[in-house]
Amino acid sequence: MAFPSQFFNLLFGRPLATSEERAEHIGPIAGIPVFGLDALSSAAYGPEAALTLLIPLGLLGVRYIVPVSAAIVALLIIVFFSYRQTIEAYPHGGGSYTVASENLGHGAGLLAAAALMIDYILNAAVGISAGVGALISAVPALQPHTLGLCLGVLGILTLVNMRGVHDTGVVFMIPTYFFTGTLLVVIGAGVWQTVAAGGHPHPVMALPAIRPATAAVSAWLLLKVFSSGCTAMTGVEAVSNGVMAFREPTRKNARTTLTIIIALLAILLLGIAYLCRAYGIAATEPGAAGYESVLSMLTRAVMGRGWFYYLTIGSVLAVLALSANTSFADFPRLTRAIAGDDYLPHVFTLRGRRLLYSWGIYVLVAFTAALLIIFRGVTDRLIPLFAIGAFMAFTLSQAGMVMHWKRQALLEERGLVRPGGVRLRMLVNGVGAAATGVTALVVFVTKFAEGAWITALLIAGMIVIMRAVHRHYTRVAREIDLDRPIIPAAVSEPIIVLPIDRWSRISEKALSFALSMSNDIRVVHVVTTEESDAFCDAWKEFIADPLRASGRAVPRLITLKSPYRYVLQPVVDYVLGVERETSYRKVCVLVPELVVRHWWEGLLHNRRSDLLKVILLMRGNRRIIVVNIPWYLEDAES
Amino acid sequence: MAFPSQFFNLLFGRPLATSEERAEHIGPIAGIPVFGLDALSSAAYGPEAALTLLIPLGLLGVRYIVPVSAAIVALLIIVFFSYRQTIEAYPHGGGSYTVASENLGHGAGLLAAAALMIDYILNAAVGISAGVGALISAVPALQPHTLGLCLGVLGILTLVNMRGVHDTGVVFMIPTYFFTGTLLVVIGAGVWQTVAAGGHPHPVMALPAIRPATAAVSAWLLLKVFSSGCTAMTGVEAVSNGVMAFREPTRKNARTTLTIIIALLAILLLGIAYLCRAYGIAATEPGAAGYESVLSMLTRAVMGRGWFYYLTIGSVLAVLALSANTSFADFPRLTRAIAGDDYLPHVFTLRGRRLLYSWGIYVLVAFTAALLIIFRGVTDRLIPLFAIGAFMAFTLSQAGMVMHWKRQALLEERGLVRPGGVRLRMLVNGVGAAATGVTALVVFVTKFAEGAWITALLIAGMIVIMRAVHRHYTRVAREIDLDRPIIPAAVSEPIIVLPIDRWSRISEKALSFALSMSNDIRVVHVVTTEESDAFCDAWKEFIADPLRASGRAVPRLITLKSPYRYVLQPVVDYVLGVERETSYRKVCVLVPELVVRHWWEGLLHNRRSDLLKVILLMRGNRRIIVVNIPWYLEDAES
Repeated sequence: MAFPSQFFNLLFGRPLATSEERAEHIGPIAGIPVFGLDALSSAAYGPEAALTLLIPLGLLGVRYIVPVSAAIVALLIIVFFSYRQTIEAYPHGGGSYTVASENLGHGAGLLAAAALMIDYILNAAVGISAGVGALISAVPALQPHTLGLCLGVLGILTLVNMRGVHDTGVVFMIPTYFFTGTLLVVIGAGVWQTVAAGGHPHPVMALPAIRPATAAVSAWLLLKVFSSGCTAMTGVEAVSNGVMAFREPTRKNARTTLTIIIALLAILLLGIAYLCRAYGIAATEPGAAGYESVLSMLTRAVMGRGWFYYLTIGSVLAVLALSANTSFADFPRLTRAIAGDDYLPHVFTLRGRRLLYSWGIYVLVAFTAALLIIFRGVTDRLIPLFAIGAFMAFTLSQAGMVMHWKRQALLEERGLVRPGGVRLRMLVNGVGAAATGVTALVVFVTKFAEGAWITALLIAGMIVIMRAVHRHYTRVAREIDLDRPIIPAAVSEPIIVLPIDRWSRISEKALSFALSMSNDIRVVHVVTTEESDAFCDAWKEFIADPLRASGRAVPRLITLKSPYRYVLQPVVDYVLGVERETSYRKVCVLVPELVVRHWWEGLLHNRRSDLLKVILLMRGNRRIIVVNIPWYLEDAES
Repeated sequence: MAFPSQFFNLLFGRPLATSEERAEHIGPIAGIPVFGLDALSSAAYGPEAALTLLIPLGLLGVRYIVPVSAAIVALLIIVFFSYRQTIEAYPHGGGSYTVASENLGHGAGLLAAAALMIDYILNAAVGISAGVGALISAVPALQPHTLGLCLGVLGILTLVNMRGVHDTGVVFMIPTYFFTGTLLVVIGAGVWQTVAAGGHPHPVMALPAIRPATAAVSAWLLLKVFSSGCTAMTGVEAVSNGVMAFREPTRKNARTTLTIIIALLAILLLGIAYLCRAYGIAATEPGAAGYESVLSMLTRAVMGRGWFYYLTIGSVLAVLALSANTSFADFPRLTRAIAGDDYLPHVFTLRGRRLLYSWGIYVLVAFTAALLIIFRGVTDRLIPLFAIGAFMAFTLSQAGMVMHWKRQALLEERGLVRPGGVRLRMLVNGVGAAATGVTALVVFVTKFAEGAWITALLIAGMIVIMRAVHRHYTRVAREIDLDRPIIPAAVSEPIIVLPIDRWSRISEKALSFALSMSNDIRVVHVVTTEESDAFCDAWKEFIADPLRASGRAVPRLITLKSPYRYVLQPVVDYVLGVERETSYRKVCVLVPELVVRHWWEGLLHNRRSDLLKVILLMRGNRRIIVVNIPWYLEDAES
């Protein structure tokens, strides 16, 4: 709630007013790390994943990496043009969810939503565990602390993100630029050496010998290689989801950011592939003795094992761990959009003290932590799964854009908007949809047995839940929405029910209030012992007689026997009985309550009044109104 | 609460009406297991504890066990006569707490209370872990499951005790009688063989050789031996605490039960000591290789290792584990008595569905489980500690009885009661007090370094807490107790504050109710965005204009800006502000609330109304009254 303390401010930053919103928006310099880190870091595992599947082909496999990478980059460029158009058409954030819902209907939108949510959560878990895994390869002594390190990184990411997007950009800028910079230097130097050596450079340090081929080339194998390599493309949709986070001119900034990210990624992928062939670098068996990552071999082949090697590998580690951050930037925005359409709880639309959609972050952190704990910090097996979500989302988004342009074309024909190359745009997005759709299908088929079926089941389950949520909100809206003026109900005196256990100042206050509200008061007293009890005597002496003497209406005393010593049950039953007997009057239950000043004092008093309120709320109905009459204990000092 | 299900009834027995109370009372046959199990089971570890300290004396040590045991039995007999008199004088239950409070003042009473509570909790933990420990010595394969077994036994004890005292007696009768019966047979057979062999019987099976002496006898050593042996006396006060649980004639039944328990215990202690000397049985080093318990050696020396041996050892195991049950019988009664004097939370005085003081059981189980978990089920080191609590309680109880008789003597002198050997009784209790007091001191001094200081600190801490609780209750009573007739407050129209977020059926219902209560209504609307909002338009069209047209008073609309998007804070501040401005009128805050029918629906709606109620309760004061206007969602089916 609203008790911001110094500590909170220090940890999460001071609260931000709604009017400070603009200040939180970013430009391309900060946008590249925030929205591009996931896409760029994919260069660290995409080529490696493809090369690993090429190991059985021996030297021939190393040659195949270039065409496979070229195919991936071609796909990447198609996707780039598609998303450029999305940014143009949806300046308020055109995530796959929005585009698919608006153009293909809610079914497609929900499919995209579920795919993306799963994708983001997997991405956060995989990113963190891959980074920690790389760190552990470098410092094997940390091996026993894998899970602890993973959760620690998650904690840091959470803290940084709770401070807001702007601060996040600053924190992530340095590792991202270091990662891109060092890899570009390696690629530049490598290409220079290769050209200088006439295509056959000599590695600075010896590389592992390439193992002889054990299998022949087949189309199925190349499809699998392509599918694995496609993980290099995950994350490129981030910019189009987050257009709103950019400062004015929004579209231009977003477009510039997307262009730079895609260009960098394409250069990295092609450069790595080219140099792998030039230097003859094959992947080594992951998890086996002598394993070394492709980027590590490449860097030391080109640069040797000096300080620059360690700088490069260090930035790879940092960026892998931080690639999870894209999920932090986008997941809350995605859930906010879905919740805004009533498909997720509305709590996702509330902005916290730092203008963030806090609940999106909480849910992301909870699921990521759960995945990390279940897999004990080793989530390699999840990597192929999240490519499916990403490509499903790509496809739905592009297909949606095709419909978008189709409608534009109709408007053009009718002369409602001025013509502007809509056919070409439709073609661009159509090619994008077809390419990514085929890729999604290929990934799904080639990865089905490895776990793609789990992703499919999860997506189905989430769609069922989102539909149920939507049904609920629709029903509630139908029931409570009101579009007519007030019709004040006929005023009739309510029936007051007041439970009293003994005569005290608290009961006196409640009874006074009851007398001011109505003339029909029923004081309810529960008797648990068999003997007569003190209150019945007090009733006559202290209440009934004095009221009668002063000419007032005397409340009715209702004595309820409770042989099993339950105190609340008889009161609730009585209230429900009164409600049944009267057809229109409201029944007000007055609940006197002692309020203590310190939590420990609360342990010394029974919580019957709280329980009574809860039970009345649970079992009550619209004509029963609960009135809380608090009695505050004075402070001990006074 | 009051939703008894079939399952509950099966597990805990059907609920019992207050009028069924008599049926729960017991006679000596059931009383011996319930109140004597702890005392009798002490025979299984008291002599062993003494003999263990005598190991360094070699053969000489075995001889010393007889005089030491005789001293303990002498003390036991003194205590027996003391407690007989307590039962006589306190037929409604004369626990050390009651006797000390009534006769020595509340300070002594609290000391006894703290000592006893710690004693009971330690007893439960030690009993369970000793039983499980013995089981594990027999079946070493169970070793890794020590803690699990301990918690399992605790769970069974809890279940059995939640069914009530009567059922408990039946369940515990068989092991207790088996234990006493088999040991008596062993002792009888052993004494017969010893007499027949002229004082030097030949063991049926060979015993471990007695190790040569490594130390000389000293008074300090013998005092320590005596202190350890005194653990055999823990639990004898149980009957006098629980007199009320016996059926009529209460005192006679309780006295008979006490007599039988003490007699059995004395026979067991003396018999074990005599036979140890006759057969030459020395303790073996606990925890070391070749360890065997004294009772095990004794049984196979007399009876051999046949079925009877296993029967005896089996009943020892069972009884040790179940000795914890005395705590279950007495702890809730003790806390009930203390709470009745306002020194513990009143919740301890409430009786549950089976007529038990359920909260006493909960607290006992919680602390016992905590001790078992902290010590991972191995609580040997706690054994000496709980003798201190027991002997402190003995001493305070007997000293209290001395004062009791002293007052009786005064009354006699004045001829107010008829004379009845009060001087003799005072002497009996005086001797008891002196003997147990000296013993308590000896135990405290000899066990100080081994942990008696922890017990002392805990007792001091608990006294501080109990005094604080008492202060609180006294203050509350002073503040709310009322011994005069009602003075109905002058009736003045309350100010109604009604927070509304948007125009809906829910707000219409709340506004209707407000209109029926007062003409001074302030509708509060919080604006978090900077744009004007829909409600302000709805206000004029749907509320203000129609009400004015129908000639009614129009509520005031208060618009609160909230730049930091907190919604509740401005409402609470406004309410407090209104309260400050008016000096006597009540402020009624109407809280409209959507009530859902299923828990999962609750996740889909924010809990702002609950939070508002809690904050108003926390920050409010006596003139602020919260009225809950629930809106029940219709069931999906309807």
